[in-house]
This record gives sequence, C-alpha cells and structure tokens, in this order.
Amino acid sequence: MNKITQDKIYNKAKEWILEAGKTIRTKINDPIEIGSKSNPNDLVTSMDKNTEKYFLEKIKTTFPEHLLIGEEGFGDDVKTLDGTVWIIDPIDGTMNFVQQKRNFAISVAIYYNGVGEIGLIYNVMEDELYSAKRGEGAYKNDLKLSRLAQPAILEESVIGLNHLWLCENRLVNEKVMQELVKTARGSRTYGSAALEFAFVAEGVLEGYLTMSLSPWDFAAGMILVNEVGGVTTNIAGEPIKMLERNSVFTGHPDIHQRILNDFLIKAKK
Amino acid sequence: MNKITQDKIYNKAKEWILEAGKTIRTKINDPIEIGSKSNPNDLVTSMDKNTEKYFLEKIKTTFPEHLLIGEEGFGDDVKTLDGTVWIIDPIDGTMNFVQQKRNFAISVAIYYNGVGEIGLIYNVMEDELYSAKRGEGAYKNDLKLSRLAQPAILEESVIGLNHLWLCENRLVNEKVMQELVKTARGSRTYGSAALEFAFVAEGVLEGYLTMSLSPWDFAAGMILVNEVGGVTTNIAGEPIKMLERNSVFTGHPDIHQRILNDFLIKAKK
Repeated sequence: MNKITQDKIYNKAKEWILEAGKTIRTKINDPIEIGSKSNPNDLVTSMDKNTEKYFLEKIKTTFPEHLLIGEEGFGDDVKTLDGTVWIIDPIDGTMNFVQQKRNFAISVAIYYNGVGEIGLIYNVMEDELYSAKRGEGAYKNDLKLSRLAQPAILEESVIGLNHLWLCENRLVNEKVMQELVKTARGSRTYGSAALEFAFVAEGVLEGYLTMSLSPWDFAAGMILVNEVGGVTTNIAGEPIKMLERNSVFTGHPDIHQRILNDFLIKAKK
Repeated sequence: MNKITQDKIYNKAKEWILEAGKTIRTKINDPIEIGSKSNPNDLVTSMDKNTEKYFLEKIKTTFPEHLLIGEEGFGDDVKTLDGTVWIIDPIDGTMNFVQQKRNFAISVAIYYNGVGEIGLIYNVMEDELYSAKRGEGAYKNDLKLSRLAQPAILEESVIGLNHLWLCENRLVNEKVMQELVKTARGSRTYGSAALEFAFVAEGVLEGYLTMSLSPWDFAAGMILVNEVGGVTTNIAGEPIKMLERNSVFTGHPDIHQRILNDFLIKAKK
C-alpha cells in the first residue's frame, strides 16, 4: 500500500473509531439487549451489532471496493486477504462492557494483500486510542510508544493470561501454565484481548497468551505490537493464520523466546 | 466517633490522600529506588516510603493522639485498636506502580475503638477517589455508589482472583478454586487488593478473594464494601481480625454466600 493511500485510509479509520466510541460513551447507561452466542458467557449486545453496522456503512460508502470481516457477521464472506480488508471487533471485551461498563475496546485493522497496514485499538471509556501504521511506529493518543528494546527477563515480567488456562482444559497443559505463572513476577487478566495486545505494545505487560482467538481479536493488536518490535505467533511459535482461529502469544521478543522454549514447548496438547 | 469528629478527620484524610497522589503523579517518571521485602516480587520503592512518611508527619502534627499502622513500618507499634488508629498502605499494588506506572492506589482507613469510621482508596493515575464514612454510603469522586441490592448469581458474575490460587499452594485447594473459576461468568486480576475492594464496592466485580492480606490491604476496602451492603469475611466465613494477616473474601452478599457454601467450605487447607 502506498503512503498516500495508507494515510487516507488511516485518517478515515481514526475518525470513525473515535466517533463510534463517542456514541458508545453517550449510550453507556442506556438499556441494552444482551444475548449470547457459542455459550452463555459469549455475550453479544445491540451495541456490538450497531457499532459493526456503523463501520460497514462507512466503509462501503467511502471505499466500495474494500471488504470487511466483522465479529458480528455483517461484513463480507472473505476467503482471502487479497485487496484491502478491514478486520473489526466492534466491542472487544463484551463481558466487561456488560458487567463493568469499562475495560473494552473497538479494534480495527486494515490489511492490504495480506500485510497489516493499519491497526487501531480504542479503549473507549478511557478515551485512549492506540494506533499504528506499518513502518511508522505505534502511538497511544499523541504519544509515540517506545520500542521494546531493553532486555527483559521473565522473573521480572508481568504477563496477561486468562484463568481458564490454569484449569483443566482441552487446549493446553494446565500444569505447565501454572509453572509459568509461578515463574513470572506477576500475571494479570483484563478481559479484552485487544487491550491486552495494546498493553503489550505499551510495555505494561511483557506478554499475553491465550488459546483461541478469532481474527478480529488479534488483527489490530498484531500490527501495534509489531511496530514496537514485539513478536506474535501461535503458542507453537508458528505464524498466525489471519483468517482462522488461532492460539496467540504476543510479547517482548526476549519473553516470547523464553516462554516458548521453557514452557510452551511442553504445554501444547 | 461523633459526626463532627468524623467529618473533621475525613476532610483532612481526603486532603492528604489527594495531595499525596498528586505528588506521585508528578514524579511518576522519575527514577525510583526499588527493593524487595519478603521475596523478590514483594517490592518496595522510595515512593512507598516517602508517601507513608508524608502521612505520618501530617497525622502526628494534626492529631498527635492518633496512632498509625503503615505498611512500610514508619508508624506506631499498635497492639490494640483502642482510640483512633489510621491504617495506611501508601502504595497498594507496588508491582503495578513499578511495572505499569498505573493500576495502584493509596489506601487510608481510620478506625475508632475498633470500628471502621472512614475508608479512602485513591486510584492515583486515574484520579478516582473511592470514599466512605460509616453510615453515609460510599462514593466514587462525587458520585454515590449504588447499594449491592439486586439479586446476583455466580454464573453471571465476575470475580477477582490471583492466578496463584489456581496453582498448587499452601493455603487453599487449587482444584476447588479452579471449579469456582469455571462456574463464574468471568474472572479478573488487577494486582491491587485495595482497587479490587473498590471495584467490588462499585459493582464492577461481584467478589474478590485472596488467601493472605495485611490490615493495610483491606482496612479501607472493608469500610467501602460495607457501606454499599457488601460482606467481608475470611475464607471460612469468619470475621476478619483487624491486626493480623487474614485470608479475605469480599463481595455482594448473594455471591459471598454462594461461594462460601459451594466452594470455600471444601477449599480451606
């Protein structure tokens, strides 16, 4: 993607994500319809759906040739990443949105022929926009984020991890994950994959790993983390497949290497 | 404690906690000395110590007959809660302070003859002050917090829990804690007990439990939670001992009862 096109799309994406977030803030205390999808805790609300429809309408009007993959399914049936594809989670952390009315984000990524060009993660209630254009670094609002350059060691790092991976489960050996938790300095769970990616980019977490995410959960975050020198793979250390569910492990390169070598190699089921 | 005295002490405590927080915000990017206490991850910094000394000086000057229990040990050697006792954690969530430069709090409680009269928890970087006077409800800044009145069920609740209690440990059966995690709608870890108490008072978490806290970690939080109709006990359902380390379980009364009856009764080692 050339720079002029990248800037043009970025400016629109930024305008729309801020506008969508403002709408959510305005309506945060209104009654909402809450339903569930794959299980009773996989929540979806009228706000998720309306926000995705907002982006769909904007994208199709302004860039009719662009495609959209959205969590709520209003987008296109995308089979390849040829051309320009938007990958959007209208509310990442819907449980937080419903239960806490904060700690959720809008995640917007734009890929061109399979390459991540633009990533935006908007912490709506905090009015904090994490953003990146490929090759130009990552920002939190107007502040450029530092590269994850200093050496890092796991014993002095804090990692993001869902509690369920410490319990018996289908995807990962919980005993190994428990060892990881005991080895790291600390562990945290915030309940929004997009925000956890943003926190890795910001250096607030040195790593974040989880066993099953969809493209809209990680597409923008990967671009942000990449721009500060972080690494994202699946938990086997292999490249993420952008159109599938994946296990996902993102982090500071030192921490990524260490956790892969000492823990994940023996954790995968 | 009479109302006039309560108001007078509250006003001073509020003034000092806001001032102390402002100082921390001003210095958040300055170099700090970091040491450790009971283990390499039990951190203490020059900021913890200086903040406690600030409170000590203010209290001893203004209320010379009051006593202070502080995490960093600059206060008095308090053996009973007779008279007026301040219980202060100058930075609760020191690991977050060091690693994240946010998600930490100053916690200030004032007890009179063993009764919690005033509780203040200040989320420093967010500039959010949670406060309560006994009998007058709890506030977040100027907003009065709702009572935890509506019926709540665990399957639709989010609880706060450290990952370590899901790993083999000396204090609690990790298998039972894993069952709890799987039963609740969600679980979160923020890394500051004081903030997790404040989130319970605010209804952002329906419960928070942990296996070993000191008085300065829970003294203010208990007052806040109490003022919105929540319940705090140890994990056996017994009253907290205010001058000792305790296991601590605070929450919405329905969730507290359910978790005690169905999980904690079989979890204690």
